[in-house]
Parts: sequence; structure tokens; C-alpha cells
Amino acid sequence: MSGIALPFDADQLDQLMADAGIDLLLATSKHNVQYLLGGYRFFFFAVMEAIGLSRYLSVVGYPRNGPASGFYVGNPMEVWQQKGEPPWTPTILNEAKTADAAAEVAAGCIRKLGLATGTIAVEMPFLPAEAYLKLEQLLPHAKLVDAVVVLEELRAVKRSNELQIIRAASEGIVASMLATFGRARPGISTRDLADILQREETERGLVFDYCLAATGRSFDRAPSNAEWIAGGTLSLDSGGTQRGYIGDLARMAVIGEPTSHMRQALDEVDAVQQAARRAVRSGYQGRQIYDAVHDLWKNLTHPEQFEFEAHGIGLVSHEVPHLVDKGFWPYPGTHRERALETGMVLSIETTLRNPDVGFVKLEDTVVVTDTGCDAYGDTARGWNVVPSERA
Amino acid sequence: MSGIALPFDADQLDQLMADAGIDLLLATSKHNVQYLLGGYRFFFFAVMEAIGLSRYLSVVGYPRNGPASGFYVGNPMEVWQQKGEPPWTPTILNEAKTADAAAEVAAGCIRKLGLATGTIAVEMPFLPAEAYLKLEQLLPHAKLVDAVVVLEELRAVKRSNELQIIRAASEGIVASMLATFGRARPGISTRDLADILQREETERGLVFDYCLAATGRSFDRAPSNAEWIAGGTLSLDSGGTQRGYIGDLARMAVIGEPTSHMRQALDEVDAVQQAARRAVRSGYQGRQIYDAVHDLWKNLTHPEQFEFEAHGIGLVSHEVPHLVDKGFWPYPGTHRERALETGMVLSIETTLRNPDVGFVKLEDTVVVTDTGCDAYGDTARGWNVVPSERA
Repeated sequence: MSGIALPFDADQLDQLMADAGIDLLLATSKHNVQYLLGGYRFFFFAVMEAIGLSRYLSVVGYPRNGPASGFYVGNPMEVWQQKGEPPWTPTILNEAKTADAAAEVAAGCIRKLGLATGTIAVEMPFLPAEAYLKLEQLLPHAKLVDAVVVLEELRAVKRSNELQIIRAASEGIVASMLATFGRARPGISTRDLADILQREETERGLVFDYCLAATGRSFDRAPSNAEWIAGGTLSLDSGGTQRGYIGDLARMAVIGEPTSHMRQALDEVDAVQQAARRAVRSGYQGRQIYDAVHDLWKNLTHPEQFEFEAHGIGLVSHEVPHLVDKGFWPYPGTHRERALETGMVLSIETTLRNPDVGFVKLEDTVVVTDTGCDAYGDTARGWNVVPSERA
Repeated sequence: MSGIALPFDADQLDQLMADAGIDLLLATSKHNVQYLLGGYRFFFFAVMEAIGLSRYLSVVGYPRNGPASGFYVGNPMEVWQQKGEPPWTPTILNEAKTADAAAEVAAGCIRKLGLATGTIAVEMPFLPAEAYLKLEQLLPHAKLVDAVVVLEELRAVKRSNELQIIRAASEGIVASMLATFGRARPGISTRDLADILQREETERGLVFDYCLAATGRSFDRAPSNAEWIAGGTLSLDSGGTQRGYIGDLARMAVIGEPTSHMRQALDEVDAVQQAARRAVRSGYQGRQIYDAVHDLWKNLTHPEQFEFEAHGIGLVSHEVPHLVDKGFWPYPGTHRERALETGMVLSIETTLRNPDVGFVKLEDTVVVTDTGCDAYGDTARGWNVVPSERA
């Protein structure tokens, strides 16, 4: 319509905004700015945002049905990057050196568009109070509402270029874990293992996010001085990003041959994972995954030791579809009764806390397809054995 | 007084809060939470904060003169890390899974302390709107003011353990640059150079923040496809953090022997740096640094090609003392008439944009001492030569 090639589904966004009564959307989180700009993230503030008495804040403005009036507010230094990677927005204002200033420039754009009394959706968790208060001050008759649900719904189905990145991130995490097992020696601390994993992920072009590590019979997963000793199990669960997209998988290792108890434990965890994966397919309801797991549950040796979760993942960990109905995260299983769609990405995770074997976990990344699902980085899911005699 | 060992100067904080009329301080940025807790930062959300429909937010509450009533609001998973690294706050509430919930728990603490009608200082650039609105809703009679100036003033003079970390970060950056020069081949792109630098910093235990890279006669510093060719100059300027503290230095390299023009250019840049450094000493005013540079300025070959900045650095780039009075950053030179103090850390940077030689820059990290200054990572400040025949 406008002749502008947009990196997202503008028709879908217009519809979502219409349904929610939103006139204009202001994205301010790293992930949603990147999403709306087709991958653009200003490198200088990609990690740390604090500077001086304020912080970096960039803004994408999208008026409903009006990409020709879309605008971007950035920092003056961004011109360097934009020469090679121009944002699609017809208006680009690299004028903001503080969050306050970014809000002021955005408010000016909104006034010019005649939307000063409109309904403006902002990212309540990712708009700093100083910018929120500036918008309130400069647009006293606007109605400010939350943009988060609309934006995560827009991101729900991944395009093929996004899937390629998620595949690379997932494969990179698993390859980094295997390299870490390969460099480990008996007696190494979980802190040193996490450090090695960080380097291996960096070496593969990932931005390391975190490493959860449990060893022996402890269920604590913070990297610490705890030593991984001969005969002991190790659970690694790591997140790392590739161009903003999260890879998040968990794998197991043991020094020396696994005991029969260990084998049984991981086999059962895998059985739960496979049952869940068989229930993933375009058109199936999200709840079917949980139903499949619960059917299997009663046949497990110690059902009370198991924990299971499936949730959407992409630029945000735990995003749409929200399938978890209880447990650790406070997000309701909003999408359990809804059909899965080809291109949605799920993280599926099964944990066993067994007092004899320790913390056993597999986490897989699966993509919904027309005929079932495709798993990324789907290797090394058994016991990865580190020789006990390694010097 | 309270018998609690605090990792910061509580008397100074109490005085700063009294001067500003603040009854209770709420820190919510990564850097200030870490500072008030003596280095604690929850590892799982140290990089990415977004999760589900909200984000991780932790809160340190400090009532004036009341460390015994200090509180910390965290996420349930933090108990793992706190077993080995307990926050000093007598009250620890690991109950918040969203920013909204963190604000609600903090508001509950404030009510219990009888401060619901008090003046509460929050970090306006680092308190999400959703948390700000929750505080407003639950504490309608409180006065919410900005905490940023008080907190950065508290951080102005670094303790010896902080200086050790800053030294390590600075040395790590320079060592990583030398390793990067050592791995470079003629024709390498600035993007590949930035990638190598990132890996070298990670290998040295730093968290990579950014790399600015300019080569040839371009003044653009975004890593790109631009090739570093034989005879060409390279400017690397990188930030990376060690336990949250920033190392930020700039060094020069050339493939093959530098020309006399290049030598002269870097010599002049160094002369400006040295003039600035001679004006750093406990008791000297911040403006003396700029005065010394301006005295030298008129003797330079092309004064109009030079740019100079000095600013405080620590957990935030560009922090107190604020000495820049104009130019790129919007922070006024608030502290120019004020005496430097032993333990303050300055980043001093001189840039020359010469059409023949290209972008030439040195950036040094200097610590104010009783007798002058101490420079960290103070090596490799001349032309680092990469052989043109390297295979």
C-alpha cells in the first residue's frame, strides 16, 4: 500500500492494533525495536545502556495503517551503522542522547501526526519512568496503554530467516556444551565450567546469556565452587543469543560410565520429552502437549520428582504461546486452548530431581511444522561421557 | 551504629540523602543494585532481563540512617546464588517474578517502615514505567524523586577493591587489542577485527561491551566490511566490563611502518593526553585539565582537527566527575570547579581526524592520586605495527 517493504506482517499488526484500539505503537525494548526494524540494533549500546545521568533509549513509532508515517528515534552516533543498514522508517531522527530526550522527540512526531489525543501503546516494562513521565507531560490528552501483548503476538510465528538464526543459536549452544565437556577434568568447579562454556559460545558467535550448572546430588544450579568429580553427573542448561534470538538447551554429562540408575533416569526424562514432542503439530492445541505428558506421568518410577514445561521462545524467553499454567513462572497458560501454528517455536523442558542421581534435565527447541515438529540442535541428548582418567 | 558491615560509605549516603530531602532510596539499575550490595548481581538475568510479559527487576531499599531496615527484593531463583553470596540487607524477599511484582513487594516494605508518605528516590532512567505506576498506585501519598545524582555521587571515589577491578579491566582491554593486532592479516574487515577483539576480551574474563573501529581515511567507527589494508591505519576503541566495571581504552595500529605523517599525528595526540594527565592530581580542579589542553592546542599543526574529552568512569561510562562542557554528551561540566579527589577515575580521550592519516585516537584510564595520577593498562600507546607480509 505504502510501497515500503516492511520486515514484519503489517496487516497483522494493523489488525492487532485495531482490535486493541491502539492508534500508535511505540517500541522501546531492544527486542521489539530490533523486530520492527528487521534485525537492526545499534551496536554501541547493545549491551550496556547506562550513560551519564540517563541511558540510551531508541524508539520505533508505528501508526496504525500508516507505515509511511513510521519513525525511528536514535542516538547521533547511529549514522555510522545506518549507512550500511538503514532503518525502513521514512523518518529517522538520530537526536536523542537520553531517555528523556528520546521521549521528547517521539512526542514531537506524535503531535505532527495529529495523534496527541490518541491511544498510544508503550512497552510498560521497557519504557523508563523518565520517558513515560515526559510523554505524559508532552501528550497530556493521550491515553497510554501497554503494547507488550500486541507485540509478542506479532512475533508469535517466526519467518524463515528467524528460524535459521534460532537453528544456528541452538546448534551453537549444544556444540559449546560438547566442547566444554571435552575440556573438563575431574574436580573442575561448576564456575569454571560456566566460564569455559561462555568462551565456547563466544567463539561460535553467540552472545552468552547464562549457564545453569548442577553437579553431584545438589539441585542448586548457580555456578559455584562445587566440584564435578569422578562418577558424578553434570547438568548444563545455557542460554545464548544469536542476533538477539535465544538458544536455550540443556544436556547431561557424567565422568566415567553412567550407572544403571543414571541411565534409567535420563531415559525417563527423554520419554517425557518425546511424548511432548509427538503432541506438537500445526493445528494441535497447546494443551495436548501437557495431556500427552500427564498420560505418561503415571508410569514413571517417581512421578513426584518430575517437572515439565513447554513455552514459546524467540527474542524473549517465555513468550507466546504461553502454555505453562502454574509452577515457576507467573504467566498463565493463555494459549492452551489455541491451535499451534507452523513457525511457532517451543522450548520443551523436563527436569528430574532424584536424590540418588542428582539433577537430570533435557531441554529441547522444537519448531511447529505442518506435519509435526523439527528439533534444532537435537544431538548429544544421552549421557555425554567424560573419561575419569583424563589428565 | 547498626552493627551491619556495609560495602559502601553509609555516612556519606545518609548525608547525601539528608541534603536532598530523601527518606528512602530504591535502587533498580544493575549498576546501583550491584554497588549497594558490594558486587552482587544475579547471574541469571545479568545479560537479558526480558521474560514473559514483563522483565526481571531487583530492588535495594535503603532508608536514611536505617541500614537495619534495608531490604532486597529479588527473584525466587536467587536463593541459589545467595547461599554463597548473601546480600547484607536484613530483609531479603526473593518473591518477584515481574517488575510489577517487585514494585509491589518494595511498596509493602515501605509501608511497614512507616514511610508511605515520605520522599522516595527512584532511578527514573532505570525504573520501568510498570513499576513506577505500581509504586504510585500503592503509595499515593509518597513523593517520588530521582535518585541518580545521589547514587553517582556516592560512587565518585572508588575503593581499593574497585580500583583493582578497573585496573584488571583496563589491562584486559589493551592485552586483547594487542592479541587482535597479532591475529590480523592485511585485508581483514573491521567487522572481523571487532569479532576477534570480542573473543580475546571474553578469553580474558571480560564481558565485551562494544568495539569502535575506523580504518584508512574513514572517520566512521561502526564495524563494517571496510578492509584494513597494507599501509592503512586502524583505530580500535573498546569497552568491556569486569564484574560490572568498565575498561575503555583506544589504541592505534598500522600495517607496515608508519609514515612520518602518521608518527607526527600520534605524537600530537599523545602530547595532548600527557598535558591533560599532568593536570590530574588530588586537590586540582577539574577545569585545570581542560585549561592545560587548551594551552597546548594553539601549538598543534591542525587544532581544528582535534577533539578532547575527560570524564569520570566506573560502573557507568560518563559518570561523576562530569567535566565535559559541550560536544557529544549532553551532560554539563558540573564538576569543573570542584577539586578532584584521590580515588576518582577519569577517562581521558583525544581524537584527531586528519584527512591524510585518518582517525587517530588515544584513550587512557587514569586514577587520581595524592601526588598526581596512575594510569591503568598504560602500554602500547604508540603505533602497533602489523607486518605487511604476514601470511
